[in-house]
Amino acid sequence: MSHIAHELQRAFREVRSYSLELAEPLSPEDQQAQSMTDASPTKWHLAHTTWFFETVLLQRHSPGYRYFNDDYPFLFNSYYEALGPRHERAQRGLLTRPTLEEVYAYRRYIDEAVLAFIDMADAQTLDQIAPIVTLGLHHEQQHQELILTDILHAFSCNPLMPAYRRVQAQPSPASSGARAGAKPIEWLYRPGGIVEIGHRGRGFAFDNEAPSHEVLLRPYEIAHRAATCGDYAAFIADGGYSRPELWLSDGWAIVQRERLEQPLYWHRSADRCTDDPLSWLVFGLDGLRPMDPHACVSQLSFYEAAAYAQWAGARLPTEFEWEAAFDAPGIEQMTGHVWQWTRSSYDPYPGFRPLPGVAAEYNGKFMVGQLVLRGGSIATPRGHTRPSYRNFFPPAARWQFSGVRLVRDI
Amino acid sequence: MSHIAHELQRAFREVRSYSLELAEPLSPEDQQAQSMTDASPTKWHLAHTTWFFETVLLQRHSPGYRYFNDDYPFLFNSYYEALGPRHERAQRGLLTRPTLEEVYAYRRYIDEAVLAFIDMADAQTLDQIAPIVTLGLHHEQQHQELILTDILHAFSCNPLMPAYRRVQAQPSPASSGARAGAKPIEWLYRPGGIVEIGHRGRGFAFDNEAPSHEVLLRPYEIAHRAATCGDYAAFIADGGYSRPELWLSDGWAIVQRERLEQPLYWHRSADRCTDDPLSWLVFGLDGLRPMDPHACVSQLSFYEAAAYAQWAGARLPTEFEWEAAFDAPGIEQMTGHVWQWTRSSYDPYPGFRPLPGVAAEYNGKFMVGQLVLRGGSIATPRGHTRPSYRNFFPPAARWQFSGVRLVRDI
Amino acid sequence: MSHIAHELQRAFREVRSYSLELAEPLSPEDQQAQSMTDASPTKWHLAHTTWFFETVLLQRHSPGYRYFNDDYPFLFNSYYEALGPRHERAQRGLLTRPTLEEVYAYRRYIDEAVLAFIDMADAQTLDQIAPIVTLGLHHEQQHQELILTDILHAFSCNPLMPAYRRVQAQPSPASSGARAGAKPIEWLYRPGGIVEIGHRGRGFAFDNEAPSHEVLLRPYEIAHRAATCGDYAAFIADGGYSRPELWLSDGWAIVQRERLEQPLYWHRSADRCTDDPLSWLVFGLDGLRPMDPHACVSQLSFYEAAAYAQWAGARLPTEFEWEAAFDAPGIEQMTGHVWQWTRSSYDPYPGFRPLPGVAAEYNGKFMVGQLVLRGGSIATPRGHTRPSYRNFFPPAARWQFSGVRLVRDI
Amino acid sequence: MSHIAHELQRAFREVRSYSLELAEPLSPEDQQAQSMTDASPTKWHLAHTTWFFETVLLQRHSPGYRYFNDDYPFLFNSYYEALGPRHERAQRGLLTRPTLEEVYAYRRYIDEAVLAFIDMADAQTLDQIAPIVTLGLHHEQQHQELILTDILHAFSCNPLMPAYRRVQAQPSPASSGARAGAKPIEWLYRPGGIVEIGHRGRGFAFDNEAPSHEVLLRPYEIAHRAATCGDYAAFIADGGYSRPELWLSDGWAIVQRERLEQPLYWHRSADRCTDDPLSWLVFGLDGLRPMDPHACVSQLSFYEAAAYAQWAGARLPTEFEWEAAFDAPGIEQMTGHVWQWTRSSYDPYPGFRPLPGVAAEYNGKFMVGQLVLRGGSIATPRGHTRPSYRNFFPPAARWQFSGVRLVRDI
Repeated sequence: MSHIAHELQRAFREVRSYSLELAEPLSPEDQQAQSMTDASPTKWHLAHTTWFFETVLLQRHSPGYRYFNDDYPFLFNSYYEALGPRHERAQRGLLTRPTLEEVYAYRRYIDEAVLAFIDMADAQTLDQIAPIVTLGLHHEQQHQELILTDILHAFSCNPLMPAYRRVQAQPSPASSGARAGAKPIEWLYRPGGIVEIGHRGRGFAFDNEAPSHEVLLRPYEIAHRAATCGDYAAFIADGGYSRPELWLSDGWAIVQRERLEQPLYWHRSADRCTDDPLSWLVFGLDGLRPMDPHACVSQLSFYEAAAYAQWAGARLPTEFEWEAAFDAPGIEQMTGHVWQWTRSSYDPYPGFRPLPGVAAEYNGKFMVGQLVLRGGSIATPRGHTRPSYRNFFPPAARWQFSGVRLVRDI
Repeated sequence: MSHIAHELQRAFREVRSYSLELAEPLSPEDQQAQSMTDASPTKWHLAHTTWFFETVLLQRHSPGYRYFNDDYPFLFNSYYEALGPRHERAQRGLLTRPTLEEVYAYRRYIDEAVLAFIDMADAQTLDQIAPIVTLGLHHEQQHQELILTDILHAFSCNPLMPAYRRVQAQPSPASSGARAGAKPIEWLYRPGGIVEIGHRGRGFAFDNEAPSHEVLLRPYEIAHRAATCGDYAAFIADGGYSRPELWLSDGWAIVQRERLEQPLYWHRSADRCTDDPLSWLVFGLDGLRPMDPHACVSQLSFYEAAAYAQWAGARLPTEFEWEAAFDAPGIEQMTGHVWQWTRSSYDPYPGFRPLPGVAAEYNGKFMVGQLVLRGGSIATPRGHTRPSYRNFFPPAARWQFSGVRLVRDI
Repeated sequence: MSHIAHELQRAFREVRSYSLELAEPLSPEDQQAQSMTDASPTKWHLAHTTWFFETVLLQRHSPGYRYFNDDYPFLFNSYYEALGPRHERAQRGLLTRPTLEEVYAYRRYIDEAVLAFIDMADAQTLDQIAPIVTLGLHHEQQHQELILTDILHAFSCNPLMPAYRRVQAQPSPASSGARAGAKPIEWLYRPGGIVEIGHRGRGFAFDNEAPSHEVLLRPYEIAHRAATCGDYAAFIADGGYSRPELWLSDGWAIVQRERLEQPLYWHRSADRCTDDPLSWLVFGLDGLRPMDPHACVSQLSFYEAAAYAQWAGARLPTEFEWEAAFDAPGIEQMTGHVWQWTRSSYDPYPGFRPLPGVAAEYNGKFMVGQLVLRGGSIATPRGHTRPSYRNFFPPAARWQFSGVRLVRDI
Repeated sequence: MSHIAHELQRAFREVRSYSLELAEPLSPEDQQAQSMTDASPTKWHLAHTTWFFETVLLQRHSPGYRYFNDDYPFLFNSYYEALGPRHERAQRGLLTRPTLEEVYAYRRYIDEAVLAFIDMADAQTLDQIAPIVTLGLHHEQQHQELILTDILHAFSCNPLMPAYRRVQAQPSPASSGARAGAKPIEWLYRPGGIVEIGHRGRGFAFDNEAPSHEVLLRPYEIAHRAATCGDYAAFIADGGYSRPELWLSDGWAIVQRERLEQPLYWHRSADRCTDDPLSWLVFGLDGLRPMDPHACVSQLSFYEAAAYAQWAGARLPTEFEWEAAFDAPGIEQMTGHVWQWTRSSYDPYPGFRPLPGVAAEYNGKFMVGQLVLRGGSIATPRGHTRPSYRNFFPPAARWQFSGVRLVRDI
């Protein structure tokens, strides 16, 4: 068996088992709940990532493959029009059957089939399927982050505010948000000019990161770290949610319609007598805890991020400015803390070509009405992102591990 | 210990254990799902009926009683304004915590506390609490029916169409609907005149069945049995869902807006070539099965029932006509098969007085915008109903075990 | 020409011209606006009432009749399924064409055709068409009231709060509501027993008032007058809109969802320092004026009326109690002031038969989900109502000239 | 009086009178109607453009200026948060008062005040106010286009399908869409490279066109003309509205939800027997007329434009590619025919600074969730646009004079 095959199996086993590890603290009921249309139940994530391997890999490439269950392709297709009709997204929380046990059995069945398929594959087949397996693993890693964002949202709807995990004895970078340190922001000078943007080299990247191309940038300054909860609390204390001049029009409409006064997971401390602008509680994977002023502020919408930047006398970076500063001396928290909203709409790169075959629907068809986020969060699986990685969400999305880093013109 | 106390304990044990029996075929996930705002998860029904005893009985009458969990009164209050704020109805499906195990523990704790309270009660206390315990048991029986209606709706949203229970070897009156026999309808003459309506005598009744009072009726004829699926299939085959003159205006608006062509749980047989008007599949507690033409048609809205009656050249009975025919010679299926929509709006009886105390909210505040159903269904616990029993739902409700019996003027 | 023909023509001219009189103070733009789906533009009312004569009378009975415009039957049908498809109700405000002038020309064309048809009709034809003309006139009178209710609603949506008519020098019974006098309520004893309900005799009545029939009533007391704005202001001052125990469940849900604190057309006086519970401004046909504490309270929903009655330690009358008290000695304001919500759902009378032909849709198909109002308001054309007259609206309707009269049990 | 003052007055008179010219064919009722929240009544456009001069110019700069009517600032502010509260957008169609006559009087009052103010202004004042007057005129020109787009939408909601203007004897470029000629598309080569984008020079431009900056482009080919109705009909005939692979995800969701099968103003010819893919009727300012296959296709959403491009094996240009091709030899219809959707999200240019003062809200706060259109349509006032002009609408907007021009990679 070739090194490539071995390596593929190793990666497959590692990624697949990490999904189960993430689900482990959750009861069958927890894994069933769907708290809004945009979020999915844990159980569905576990099944859908499995369906991806079954439909895109085994069904298409493994001769004689038989579906585990003929109903599953319909139940667990997310949005692939080319792969047939599918169950309505908003109804995922009602799929009490298959049970969690059945979904686990489905995973085992597919795991064995994939590993066996790799075992048996000749060199030519391996060449053909290795990119599909790799795509499936990166796809699963994306859903690993969604398992955490979505269960956090579900738990936030429960008045008991359950914690996904026990409070850790040692404060860690990955508590309610990653800690950004107490240092004031330093502004790092970036010269601009022609910069090379997008994925280069041989490793895996999604189609939306290509082709790499040159972009002209003006000089700018970028904050050496992300904004903290303490920074953001000052924005709130200064009337941030009641000053329309700070907001984009659509964002202000939401603030008014939904009477927003703070981020989605922030709660006023019960001790309402206090005037302390820092007396917030923040809900996170550890449950409801006093705000850590040095943690990265997270779960912001693009509108909130942009209003905060306006208030701070700065602005959001374009995705190109962000990428060009990735390796800037002194820069911190570019990944592993929070996704960072950019001022760039999620448009195709010049010369963009979707992946061939059914994976064509993976990224391209979503390229309108969304904003690019860069970086990676405490919920992103280790090794999943790159400097050229383009995450994207609609500007109103508030339940992601999404924060903000400032830039300013010179 | 008095006979009354013994009897109360016996009834309490029997009713309480039957709820668990109903939940027994359901996984923790099944018991978690809420398929629409009008329906509730099984787990919530199990907890809410327990909360009723805790809040209305123990907390108010048992000295020194301590809540099982201080959060539960908020989570499991349904609609009692006088009993404080409560969790939003539409979000019941998101209460993955407490877990089912915790709800079972809650039930055991309350069961023991109630039984112990009855044990210790002196005669005067017993007089005081016996009506509350009895009310709580009838309340729980109502939720026992809802456990079945609501899980059936949840399962109907699952493309797998799971069955609540295995298909029974022997066809029983309680298959997908109760069988109405193959006999053509016989019209039973009823003379009308002054009839006594409402609950009389000593047994338990809800406040909405009182006061008993006289009503003047014209002579009429009533069908000896409920309408069957076969009867209703003929209505469909004759264009029932495309003829506005058969429908009340609000009903026709729904037919058009939702493009209705059959009852909620009816599906066209896969064999679409057939012209057989009876080739339907009907979803029920046994899963999706071929329509039994002799079974009572069920899961009709008031609008469907009224349109069917119009098509049949008959009409729906008033609740008074229905009650006055309860013991008519030759009449069948007055209870234990389907609830029967009446043409009577759910208005208070002359001189109506709500129950005292917190139970005042039990019935009276819902007396507008709903229609009365009489009878009792295959899902109604044995012994729960009476001839004077008034069930009620909004006219558009389609997920109950609700059918139709015809009357006609002379 | 017969006396009947003469009389019919006289009535026709009188009713038809009164519609134009009502429209006279309104600009073409005023007559165009539709402020909500439930309300219609004045211009539409003027055209629709004309369409009724054209379609139900001329087109069906006048040989060789030619439509004024082939598009109008589609545009101006309200809800008659048997008379073909129709323009969407919510879009009536967009019919800027035909212009008002064209609608006036339409009216003249139909008026001449109807009068000529009556002129030429032989005795047999006259027998046939007289009931249709009469129905058309009563229909038009209903729309005359709606012209006022609907324009009042449209004006209430305009921050300028225009007045439909100038303030009258002499306060009249028909100012913002009719004056109910300063006298405290006297409770008039009514013995109950078997009473005859519904329309008897030869004059015109709608099908929903028949057949007349006997109803058994308990003894009761009825208020000699309707509730006043002053009465209602006391209810508000006593926390009426913040006490759920006073409200029906659906009504309380609306109070909370829409944050209601007063009737639709009441505004807090600008002088907010005052503690005077009577310092309200009320919008009416004369514009925004200080509340007259002795005027009948109007524009209440059923929910508001019922909550007020609950607060007052009384209740709403059934429609039978109301009708049986119509001629009670000492009773006032039974008509010509405000419609009076009853506690009766709008159900068919025993033996109800809809009108024959296309008029079958006039009343019967609306007999669910609505409540009966009795009486007649300042906006009701003189001579339009009877003691047996049954008006009806959904319980949430707040824009009608609808008030409340109390009864209580003995 | 200076040349500048004279020129300002001339421009003011010309633009202001053109608005009235556009409104001239419309009745007071036509000018009242608001067919959807996104559209406004003609009367409102006439008043709002007047309000702009009153509030931004006169009230702020003309000493002692008195409002024409103290209520108008509230009624006719569109979206300027800094200029105080405002009437709800969706309710503009209910402002039957002020009447059209009053709005005309308002226009005359402001016109006189502005002209007199310019007359009296000293050189320093003139320097200060000239940019404001100019901005107000360009603002009014934008609303002149909206007067046409919005009345066309209102008329499209009327089953009578009235024509804004009589059919013209001579087919003109500005009939239902501008004619694109029968010539097949020629692909014009563009070399790309570094191009200068944005407004340079001295004339007026909006803030969103600045700063001018360099952009790197790849080589591309651009169609010499816009797509025609005939081109688009071929897309429809080839199943364009039923092939998800051609659509962006959000666009396909709309196609399915709203069951779209053609552009908003296209209607199948009554002669349904025909197989002719060109047998369409298209609603436009001249009413409903047979599709002209050589006219530019118009009233497309971005989603429709992008799906058409995908089907055609091409793509939409970026706004930079479009601008860089403005003067390409052989290129036609770059303005005066249809707005042309670009593939560029409406993001700020590098170094973008909003206008100072209240005009800061003019463009910047809308820079998210919209797409850029370039060019100018038959409804755009002559002289209003520039090569650098950036129009913008949300991707779902279907009621603008918006079409498509293709580009393709090399």
